[in-house]
Amino acid sequence: MTKPKTHVRLDFSEGSSIGPGKIGLLEAIATTGSLSAAARELGMSYRRAWLLLHSVNAGFDEPVADLSTGGVDGGGAKLTAFGQKLVKDYREFQRRVDALAQKSFGGIQASGTPAVEPVAPRRAINRSVTGTKRRR
Amino acid sequence: MTKPKTHVRLDFSEGSSIGPGKIGLLEAIATTGSLSAAARELGMSYRRAWLLLHSVNAGFDEPVADLSTGGVDGGGAKLTAFGQKLVKDYREFQRRVDALAQKSFGGIQASGTPAVEPVAPRRAINRSVTGTKRRR
Repeated sequence: MTKPKTHVRLDFSEGSSIGPGKIGLLEAIATTGSLSAAARELGMSYRRAWLLLHSVNAGFDEPVADLSTGGVDGGGAKLTAFGQKLVKDYREFQRRVDALAQKSFGGIQASGTPAVEPVAPRRAINRSVTGTKRRR
Repeated sequence: MTKPKTHVRLDFSEGSSIGPGKIGLLEAIATTGSLSAAARELGMSYRRAWLLLHSVNAGFDEPVADLSTGGVDGGGAKLTAFGQKLVKDYREFQRRVDALAQKSFGGIQASGTPAVEPVAPRRAINRSVTGTKRRR
């Protein structure tokens, strides 16, 4: 019996979505108290983490995290109350989705061996509706 | 109030997963009775559709679709009973996940305007733990 793992992305509107990547970044910010430390923890460039956080902040009416600049450590980052709630709600939601997936798909048997890269047709096969075949 | 849309991928094992793209292809195969027609309907190359279908077929102990070759129309494709059940179960699962998302996140307000592409820092800011700043 295979226990399926789920990856859920939620789109609230165009340009406003959350998923495992963004939620993971918010959690790392909460743990480390800094965007650069969070990026390091996730093996992500600072630039990518900054862009990701910006896109979450811009996606909702309220910011999910505050960045403070200055100080010897280059400033910190912390989640807002809204950001904390978003993380908590997402994780609770994901637990329920996992349970639902287990209920719906727990009996499905995945093949044991990873798929061998197949040899795909090199180009679209031209199928004429009249039944004549194109010759090359 | 924003009604969130969900995108759910289910990973059964390494190399064995389903999500909206693969399920959409299976549905188009069921409707059209042919892989090339399904690919056309989805605006996908035949090669991509073939690879996608192969990866689903290889991912489980049973195939999800049978391809027949030959004939004036270049052969057809149809879902197996297992493939039909997979599509049905996924759509039912997705309906439940959508309802759950609505319950958990229906009150969240996405920002009305799509995010403007931000100007990200050009490179990682080097933050020394000793508090000294690197000069360029």
